[in-house]
This record gives sequence, C-alpha cells and structure tokens, in this order.
Amino acid sequence: MTRVAVIGVGCTKLDEHWDKSLKDLSTEAGGMALKDAGMDGKDIEAMFIGNMSGGRFIGQEHLGALSVDHSGLLPIPATRCEAACSSGSLAFRQAYHSILTGQHDIVVAAGAEKMTDIGGTNAIGTLMGAGDQEWESSIGLTFTGLYALMANAYMKKYGLTREELALVPVKNHLHGFNNPFAQFKKKITIEDVLKSSLIADPLRLFDCSPLTDGAAVVILASEKIAEKFKNPVWIWGSGQASDSLALHDRQSLTETASAVHASRSAYKEAGVTPKDINVAEVHDCFSIAEVIAYEGLGFAEKGNAKELLKSKETTIGGRIPVNTDGGLKMGHPVGATGIKQVVEIVKQLRGTAATQVKDAKIGLTHNVGGSGATCVVNILGKEKK
Amino acid sequence: MTRVAVIGVGCTKLDEHWDKSLKDLSTEAGGMALKDAGMDGKDIEAMFIGNMSGGRFIGQEHLGALSVDHSGLLPIPATRCEAACSSGSLAFRQAYHSILTGQHDIVVAAGAEKMTDIGGTNAIGTLMGAGDQEWESSIGLTFTGLYALMANAYMKKYGLTREELALVPVKNHLHGFNNPFAQFKKKITIEDVLKSSLIADPLRLFDCSPLTDGAAVVILASEKIAEKFKNPVWIWGSGQASDSLALHDRQSLTETASAVHASRSAYKEAGVTPKDINVAEVHDCFSIAEVIAYEGLGFAEKGNAKELLKSKETTIGGRIPVNTDGGLKMGHPVGATGIKQVVEIVKQLRGTAATQVKDAKIGLTHNVGGSGATCVVNILGKEKK
Repeated sequence: MTRVAVIGVGCTKLDEHWDKSLKDLSTEAGGMALKDAGMDGKDIEAMFIGNMSGGRFIGQEHLGALSVDHSGLLPIPATRCEAACSSGSLAFRQAYHSILTGQHDIVVAAGAEKMTDIGGTNAIGTLMGAGDQEWESSIGLTFTGLYALMANAYMKKYGLTREELALVPVKNHLHGFNNPFAQFKKKITIEDVLKSSLIADPLRLFDCSPLTDGAAVVILASEKIAEKFKNPVWIWGSGQASDSLALHDRQSLTETASAVHASRSAYKEAGVTPKDINVAEVHDCFSIAEVIAYEGLGFAEKGNAKELLKSKETTIGGRIPVNTDGGLKMGHPVGATGIKQVVEIVKQLRGTAATQVKDAKIGLTHNVGGSGATCVVNILGKEKK
Repeated sequence: MTRVAVIGVGCTKLDEHWDKSLKDLSTEAGGMALKDAGMDGKDIEAMFIGNMSGGRFIGQEHLGALSVDHSGLLPIPATRCEAACSSGSLAFRQAYHSILTGQHDIVVAAGAEKMTDIGGTNAIGTLMGAGDQEWESSIGLTFTGLYALMANAYMKKYGLTREELALVPVKNHLHGFNNPFAQFKKKITIEDVLKSSLIADPLRLFDCSPLTDGAAVVILASEKIAEKFKNPVWIWGSGQASDSLALHDRQSLTETASAVHASRSAYKEAGVTPKDINVAEVHDCFSIAEVIAYEGLGFAEKGNAKELLKSKETTIGGRIPVNTDGGLKMGHPVGATGIKQVVEIVKQLRGTAATQVKDAKIGLTHNVGGSGATCVVNILGKEKK
C-alpha cells in the first residue's frame, strides 16, 4: 500500500471576513495551497471538505459541489464531512484513505466555515448542534457551559487552580503573536485572563476561542507523486474515535475517552509513542480542553497536565511545544480548524513555521468535535516512515 | 485488494413518523440490518452516515457520534457525509472505500433524515440548502421550480408530452404498491397525474417526491468475512462526480453531466456496460429527473428516454425495470435515500424483493444531490465479480 504525503498547504487569515463569502474563503485557501505546492489544479482527482454547519450559518449545504465548482475542478467527486468542530480532520482522514484505496493519487482536503456576518442566525445556538439537541441544547446549555462543567470537575478532582488554568491562554497568545493568520495578536498575562469577563464559571473571556471565518486547504499525494514535489511531509498515522454525544452520559467528566482511543490508534499506525512527538496542535476550544487533552494524548499522567504548563514543557523552547500557532484562541472557524492544524504541523516539519520548534521531526494534531464525542488524531513526519 | 459485499440491510417504513426521533429511526434501521445479517454489533469497526440537514431540520449536527452512541457501538469512528439528497450514497461509498484501504473488515453505511414534525422550520427552504444559496434560494427558487425549468427545456427540445412524462409516476406507483415500506400505496393513472395540483408548471403533485422521515442501514464486509454470511451481494463498482451547483451555470438544462461521469466511472470499475444492468434504482425526485437520468446512465440515447417508458421496458416485466420499490415517490428521506436504494437492489439480487425482477444478476443505484451537482452511481452483483 502506498505512503501518503502532504505536498501543499494554504490558510486564509482567521478573522471576521465581512467582505468574503464561504466560497471566496475556500477558493482563496485552495489557491494558496496550489501555489505552495507549485502546481495547478488540473491533476487533482477528488476533494473532501470539512464544514460543520453551513446549512444553519449561511443556508448552504452541499459544500463539496460548491467548492469544486468555484475552484474550476469540475467534474471531480467532492464529499463534505461533518463531525462538528472535528469536521476538518474527518476530511483529511477521508482524503488520506482515498489515496490508500489506490483510487486516487492527488486529493484535496479542505475545511471552511463562515460564522460571522450571518444575518439573523444565532451562532451560539447553531454551535450547540454539536451537542445533544434533546438533552443539552434544549435545556439551554452552551458549549462554554459544557466545558465549564468539565473545568469545575477537573479543578475539584485534581486541585488545578484558576491561575494554573490561565497558563494555557497565556502560552497560546505568546505563540500566536507571530502568526500572520491569527485573529487576535496580543500577548496576555495571567492577570489579564483573571480580569477578563466571566463567561461560564470558571471560564473567562480569554479561556474561550472566538467565532471566526476562515478556510484551510492541504493537498495530499501518493508516494510516487509526492516524491516529485519539493516539500513532502508524510502522514504516519491517523486515528478516530467516538464517545457519547451528551456530557452526562460519559463515564468521567475529567477524561476524554475518544482522545485516548483515537491517539492510541494513531500512535499504533505511526509506530511511535507520545514521547516521540516534537510538536503538537491540540484542540484548545476552551482552556480546560487543552489540559484534559494532554492526559488523553498520553503527554501527561492523569491530573498532572498542569506540570507541563508550569514547567513550560509545552511552551516554545520546551520539550513538546503545543499550539505553536496560538491554537484555537487565534481563530476557530470550526469546520476548518482540523485542516488549519495540519497546515501548522506541516510548516513545523518543513522548518518554516512563524514560531518554529527547533529540529521538529514528528508532529501531531488533535481535533475534537463537540464536548469530546468525536476525536481525530493525526501524526505526520518530516521523513518517510 | 479485497472485494467488498453487502451482508445485511434494513429500512424503516418511509412515513411521517411523528412519534419517532431521528435517532429512534436510525437505531431501528440498524437493528433490522443486524438481524438481516444474522450478527450482533460487536464486530462493527466504523460507521458512515448520510444526512443532509439535521442541523436545520432538528437542530442536530454531529450525527455520527449520535448514531454510534445510541446504537451501543462506542468508541468506533463515525463520519457524517453530506451532498444533499445524495448524502446516503456518499456514506455507502466511504464505507466501501474504508474496507478497500485494508483498515476495516466490517463497516456500517447508514442514512437518516427527519423532515416532518420539525417545529417551525421551513422544510422547503431547508431543502434549498442543496442548491446555490447566493443565486437560487435567495431569489425564491424551490427544487420543484428548478426541475420544472429542466422539464420545460426538455419537453421543448425533444417533444416529450405531458402525458408521456406522467408515465414515470404511473410506473413507480404501480411498482411501489407492493412495497411494505412505502409512504403512499396507491396505483394511479395518467389522468390522476394530469388532474393533480399544479406545483411548478409543468410539474404536478404526482410528479413530486414527498417529505419523509426514515432511515436505512446496510452492513458491508470484506471478502473473507462476507463469505461466512448467507447472502452476500457484491459491490462491483462505484462512481461519483460533480457539476456546477447552480442550474444556470450548466452547459445544458436537459442533460446531467455528473450522471454521465459518475456512471462511466462505475461501469469502468465494474467492467460492465448499461446493457448488462438488470434492475436499477434511479433518483426520481421529480418525474423529469428519471427521464433525464435514463440518458445520463446510457439506458437511452439523448431525447429517447420516453421510448423506454412507452414500451414498458423500465416497468416490471420489461428489459430493465427501474424503481421496483416505487422509487423516491414512495418516500424521500433525503439523506437516507441513497442507502434505501442499495437496500432494494440487494433484495433484488437476493431474489427477495416485493416486486421481484426475474433472475436479476446486476443492479445499479443512481442518486443525485441538488439539481445534479452531485451524482453517485453504484453497481452491485449477485455473484462475485
């Protein structure tokens, strides 16, 4: 079976793009990825696109056809994949697998979401489509509320302090300061986090990722094609798993079983352990999500994630820098986020990231749907496995 | 590379299920498919689910996790696929391909949609998410309107009469009369069609598929597993293609390029020609769609589809019966339809369909998203290819 590499990447600025539609953003990111690869689109054989809620945000489903149509790629097949905020990673996985079947050699994986300038639509209500409609959104829960429940349970169980939790956004804002695509470029302090508006106790404004418009595109190729390109970065493994949709059905509020299963699958396929990872993009939709993810991914033992933050092991210069582009705090266009994470890891492994990890050879992306009902983990390598 | 077979099928009654939620319907269809295969769910390794617009219809995205959760299949990966009314076929194709990668041996492909009893949501407006939001739905076009434009163009170009167009629903209502899952069991005449309410000239009530709640599930397995089951039906080929999202961007209103491309891909993979097909499920969302599909699929030359209808070649007992379960006129739960079509073809090839084609050996499904922007064609065989 062929190996698969990423040969081109593109990402729009993550922002409130009141002057650009979803298809403008997708097309822009696609053009950047083609230019980055040094190719035109004529050899692309299929497209997979992650999008969470085009139907509710902008009245537009059927984004596969929309995207290939406006990219001039007709009549290639186009498939939209959705699992809430992990939709982009599903598209990446399907694109990867479509090459493994032997049916395609060059495939696009895209992600796009338009979340602002959407008329009368309620963005917070729309996002709750990622949770359980019958048991969560119908009673008024929001995603900040769901993660606040997890934060309270974790802080009580493991003694994490509010100040320690603030180390997540402080680190990510530090990393994101150099990111040319970031929605917010602003270094912050623990005090800034603690003084910011309370959104859902204990989570404050600086603990929350924003509403963002944006698109990201990566181009994947089979081994024989990829080797003709200048900067292939190789896919070593990919894992995906599910957990109960509603938070109250989980066995624990302080662990994410889907991250455990997805990462173990990815590590197994890649033939590596958590200790081999040099750089990671971790789904920090809310600060507590990054804390719990460290443990699900095996970066830290249960209850010990704070030690990675306090010792700066996950800060640039540390042992395993996490969210070197600033993570979701720098913009979270939900369906695009999983692809944006791959873009950053590819840049890290090429050695061209804005906040570069020295000698990064193996990188990981961790992308979550809802409060953890879906998790996708991808592992990429600078060299062929 | 392994061959892949369908080893179990299930479909709920297609109806207005005011007493059942989307997850009730999915779980019911899944249970039927497991029972049909003669297995429990513990060996299932992944799920793909087609759904067009859970977000807008019922406020619920993230249907992959919802479905595996309530089917007791956690923590397997679950991916929702969407391309409007062809969403079910995308799920089927992804499930098929996931086995071709060698990563899985037993995979579920599901489709589900809840379109009635949906509170204040506008179903017709929601369905227009399948078209071009900027250029079609924003100016008030509906899907009946889009297909009416195609019908008028076709009738003018090829001299198809209103009476000849009525042969499509008359045939499909005849076929569907025996279908235990049909939403409407009623034989009709040409006169009934012509006297029914005008919806969008020239299309009348009996030319239109209904709003439907329903779910369908098929279980796919690799060759080594499938051969242990009693009734494997083999996947010979699958093709998918895209066309411009907006009707006005097409080169022709009387042809569907996506059907031509998708069917040619499927025929090539299957190693067959249109003449080899013994039975077909064709996407008759509106009567004109079935007429144009005959030509896109190569069953008839351009402008000659009416001859197949007039000579009853596509009626049961004819050379190539089409829509033996009554087609979409007997219920069109949009995201489920592509899977429901596979259910019928599997039953035909097993020899257990309600309206059985004698000695059917090769069957085809043709599933369309929007007004033709996505088309998926699958070819299945009674024997291993």
